[in-house]
Amino acid sequence: MSTLISEGKTKKLYTTNDENIIKVAYTNHATALNGKRKEDIDQKGTLNNRISSLIFAYLAKNGIKTCFIEQLSETEQLNKKLTMIPLEVIIRNLASGSFQKKFGTDYLAELKQPVQEFCLKSDELDDPFMNNDQILALDIVTEDQIEELRQTAFKINTLLKELFIKANILLVDFKIEFGFDADGNIVLGDEISPDSCRLVDKDTKQSLDKDVFRKNLGDIIEGYQTVLARLEAEIN
Amino acid sequence: MSTLISEGKTKKLYTTNDENIIKVAYTNHATALNGKRKEDIDQKGTLNNRISSLIFAYLAKNGIKTCFIEQLSETEQLNKKLTMIPLEVIIRNLASGSFQKKFGTDYLAELKQPVQEFCLKSDELDDPFMNNDQILALDIVTEDQIEELRQTAFKINTLLKELFIKANILLVDFKIEFGFDADGNIVLGDEISPDSCRLVDKDTKQSLDKDVFRKNLGDIIEGYQTVLARLEAEIN
Repeated sequence: MSTLISEGKTKKLYTTNDENIIKVAYTNHATALNGKRKEDIDQKGTLNNRISSLIFAYLAKNGIKTCFIEQLSETEQLNKKLTMIPLEVIIRNLASGSFQKKFGTDYLAELKQPVQEFCLKSDELDDPFMNNDQILALDIVTEDQIEELRQTAFKINTLLKELFIKANILLVDFKIEFGFDADGNIVLGDEISPDSCRLVDKDTKQSLDKDVFRKNLGDIIEGYQTVLARLEAEIN
Repeated sequence: MSTLISEGKTKKLYTTNDENIIKVAYTNHATALNGKRKEDIDQKGTLNNRISSLIFAYLAKNGIKTCFIEQLSETEQLNKKLTMIPLEVIIRNLASGSFQKKFGTDYLAELKQPVQEFCLKSDELDDPFMNNDQILALDIVTEDQIEELRQTAFKINTLLKELFIKANILLVDFKIEFGFDADGNIVLGDEISPDSCRLVDKDTKQSLDKDVFRKNLGDIIEGYQTVLARLEAEIN
């Protein structure tokens, strides 16, 4: 018996017989502009489910606590149930997206060091960018938790960069989310896929991620397929 | 012989015979919306010059390194010449302005702790809010300098709160700017006035600052005069 818990922008969450475990079903929904633009893209759910399963298993093998248990089917996986922390944790290795726009840098400009950012998860407030003081003033998490989120995000960045560079892909930036498991541990949740990462081919600088959809550059599936195929070749 | 060095939104800077000293002339210009709205308000220059002179002298007496040397006339002061750091340093004690809007809090909502923010000074980019990583990645100042700016801003906050509360005024938030003097010290520059602070009467919560202009609530001069009169009564 499995009932719908909630439906996000791109995934549906279902109960399982174990109250600490949920089933996640990846849909073909694509959204941009904080959900204001919507489309369905054939194969996207399958590709993201497979890519994210593969990446979460790789991170777990390298010491990161994640929600991932196993891939169930082409579009579904079993996850630990988490109480999500309402923060997006972003790491940027090269300038792109909102950073590029905000600071007027070139696309893919080198940064003196990687940048970690927090945004409040709130559709209503348009996911505002926050600094640590604001997080503490609004009592979202504690100072120690901020530090753990930050250090874990940098550890994940190092692991992901190592993985992607073997696949001849530059990890430009990515967004991850965390939650608390039943024991109160901070655990990586949500997904890591071309929906949540900016990935470009190291040589051609071609986008292999959702920017193709955001910028209306054509079919996104080819890029997602490339990412999956190259990762599978490296990991398996 | 005194020649114009530059003209800011509200002040003109002139050379003096000493290359390390400038003359600052406060104008009656009032701006809002990052300079898009402009007006001249009689007495504003005089009031801000007098208020800022008084506050900078008070801070200097309490151990803060400032650019202030002396008030020269109703609208002018002598300042140490600084090489300005292109960051606005903001401290918030209560929710207001962009913080209130961004996070959907109530006006003057209590914060769990004071918030310090940095914004890049750039009219072109609309003074974007930055976190420490972004400042380091774009090589604006060093990590030690960030820490010094932050700690000095909190020290100034403590001193200003003490001063204003004696005048029955709540210091809601304020923006300050720093620069390097000829010896490379980080020194408080610019001004501290009702143009750069949010100040409300402790009992009535009436705005005594530029919010009256920003929000088109009427004549701002009465509030500025109240601030000056109450500070003079406390300090002299």
